[in-house]
Amino acid sequence: MSRLTKQRLARMIDHTLLRPEAVSGEVVKLCREAAEHAFGAVCVNPAYVPLAVSQLNGAMVRVGTVIGFPLGATSTAAKVAEAGRAVRDGALEFDVVLNLGALKDGRAAYVGEEISQVAAAVRGVQAGAVVKVILETTLLTHAEKVLGCRLAVEYGADMVKTSTGFGPGGATEDDVRLLRSVVGDRLGVKASGGIRDLKTALQMTAAGADRIGTSSGVKIITEWPEPDYSTVE
Amino acid sequence: MSRLTKQRLARMIDHTLLRPEAVSGEVVKLCREAAEHAFGAVCVNPAYVPLAVSQLNGAMVRVGTVIGFPLGATSTAAKVAEAGRAVRDGALEFDVVLNLGALKDGRAAYVGEEISQVAAAVRGVQAGAVVKVILETTLLTHAEKVLGCRLAVEYGADMVKTSTGFGPGGATEDDVRLLRSVVGDRLGVKASGGIRDLKTALQMTAAGADRIGTSSGVKIITEWPEPDYSTVE
Repeated sequence: MSRLTKQRLARMIDHTLLRPEAVSGEVVKLCREAAEHAFGAVCVNPAYVPLAVSQLNGAMVRVGTVIGFPLGATSTAAKVAEAGRAVRDGALEFDVVLNLGALKDGRAAYVGEEISQVAAAVRGVQAGAVVKVILETTLLTHAEKVLGCRLAVEYGADMVKTSTGFGPGGATEDDVRLLRSVVGDRLGVKASGGIRDLKTALQMTAAGADRIGTSSGVKIITEWPEPDYSTVE
Repeated sequence: MSRLTKQRLARMIDHTLLRPEAVSGEVVKLCREAAEHAFGAVCVNPAYVPLAVSQLNGAMVRVGTVIGFPLGATSTAAKVAEAGRAVRDGALEFDVVLNLGALKDGRAAYVGEEISQVAAAVRGVQAGAVVKVILETTLLTHAEKVLGCRLAVEYGADMVKTSTGFGPGGATEDDVRLLRSVVGDRLGVKASGGIRDLKTALQMTAAGADRIGTSSGVKIITEWPEPDYSTVE
């Protein structure tokens, strides 16, 4: 990968607002910030996809949303229907929480088929739709993290993602390295959960993340050191 | 209401397991406990409804589930589809998180129509399906709690419920009293979130709750004082 610049980092940020009590004015503000700082995407709850799409119409910012979020424990049919509605509402990226209980039960085919069905539902409407599988790493063993990554590869996801931000912990450098080591260059790796400053964001990219999910995108990008022209005549 | 007995309290308990990492063996155990202690219902995530239904086949315990849980911020279409799948899987009770952002935005008709659509979807399959509206009281102002209750009444819900158990706080006596004062005897009131012992459960029923959502049902019912026959000859 070429050298990281401020602009490249901004394009890696999913500017995120998932608090359940967020009002529409906050979503509008999120979208304005994303356009202003040229973030790659916003990430909002499904009910706000139409608003975000209308706000970002014409901007270079993609609208992403979450599916089966944050527990991942709903039915496959519910995830497929939720994703289908969101893609028809204009979302282009879909962060899907995998079924953690089924993964722990060893029902790998169930977990994988669910990913595959959600991916088919959104790609049938938007061929370039991006499907990210949220592992919620802090609730998984090492073996379960590896299995989750392998299923994401095998069943056609585009990225794996560490955390929902609603679980007992967030992204760690070790987990990002592990995810990257399993998926190699076949899938993207999104680090999310607890990334609130530039230093942490850069640690995540150094560990292998090529996407950063954060509600602190403005703070992070503002912390990027500007070149010092003060000594130039 | 007649005097509370151990048996009556047990029938008021929704024996609950919603942790995202719960495996199927835990759901089986939950169902056995519910049948053994004659709890009114179990409450599980949608993906576990078929398992719970198969386990409780023939028992007097209803299977309940959660919709749009715990954020309430998904699309109406997603909530309707999720509820539709769950009722066809055999669930009889549906704890639906209302759209908190829309409520705070003052979009009362949106919030109400969503409740109405979910209720219609499940009652079209099961005429006696019970719809509970989760308010997540700790995220609402007093006026928003009152409005949420009024919408639950107006748009045909069966109960209002304080909390998801995943938010920043749970049921309080004050909130239960408030909910009861607004809905009167037209709707039920379910207290949930942080109820982990008999004393707290009894405080909630005294404040007006006629349903208790808890993952500590066995502990609560076991704490009920047994009559002391030790001095009887």
